Amino acid sequence: MDTMGRHVIAELWECDQQILNSQADVEKVMVNAALESGAEVREVVFHKFSPQGVSGVVVISESHLTIHSFPEHGYASIDVYTCGDRIDPQVATDYITKRLRAGRVETIFIPRGVGSFADVKQNVEILR
Amino acid sequence: MDTMGRHVIAELWECDQQILNSQADVEKVMVNAALESGAEVREVVFHKFSPQGVSGVVVISESHLTIHSFPEHGYASIDVYTCGDRIDPQVATDYITKRLRAGRVETIFIPRGVGSFADVKQNVEILR
Repeated sequence: MDTMGRHVIAELWECDQQILNSQADVEKVMVNAALESGAEVREVVFHKFSPQGVSGVVVISESHLTIHSFPEHGYASIDVYTCGDRIDPQVATDYITKRLRAGRVETIFIPRGVGSFADVKQNVEILR
Repeated sequence: MDTMGRHVIAELWECDQQILNSQADVEKVMVNAALESGAEVREVVFHKFSPQGVSGVVVISESHLTIHSFPEHGYASIDVYTCGDRIDPQVATDYITKRLRAGRVETIFIPRGVGSFADVKQNVEILR
């Protein structure tokens, strides 16, 4: 199996605070994001923190998706990492961005498993 | 809770191929890395792929550690993300690097939850 992978790190701001604080909603968004991008879901683990926040991981055959939400700040910290070139991590990232109703997203794209981080790319989008 | 976090992405090359292909060994290294750094382990999920490779996640109160191993290439793809400033993700990264007997490690440090990726730092180390 080839080591090549693509990793999108996204900082989502101004998200819907109610969604961010619902473990059921966050889990649904993350699993559906994996499925939307064509990934094969292997394991799903979510954890609700007291008093606020949800952390979760979707392990896919092609690597993983993670989220850590901070409802009180309208902030969610997202990672979408896919091995190989069949699945585009940006598809899942865009899905999550939309479903969490983010107002601002900052992303960093990191090539994985290719022996160099030379092609790291950054982007900022104001969505409303 | 403050959104500030620190994320170390590490590409480990020339690792011990037997360790990389043992789910039990990889899981032990990752859980111990979390504990060594002082993190509180919440969930542990590992998956062995056929014919080779292990994927796994350790969800900690302070975010997560992940690994994807490619034994046939001696390569392991590591993420250590810790929220707050109590836990240093470099401690867990160094522990994993040593226990997997990596010969070369490339890391990228990404500040999370601070509204900017301005301080992204990269580093390459040849260990033998």
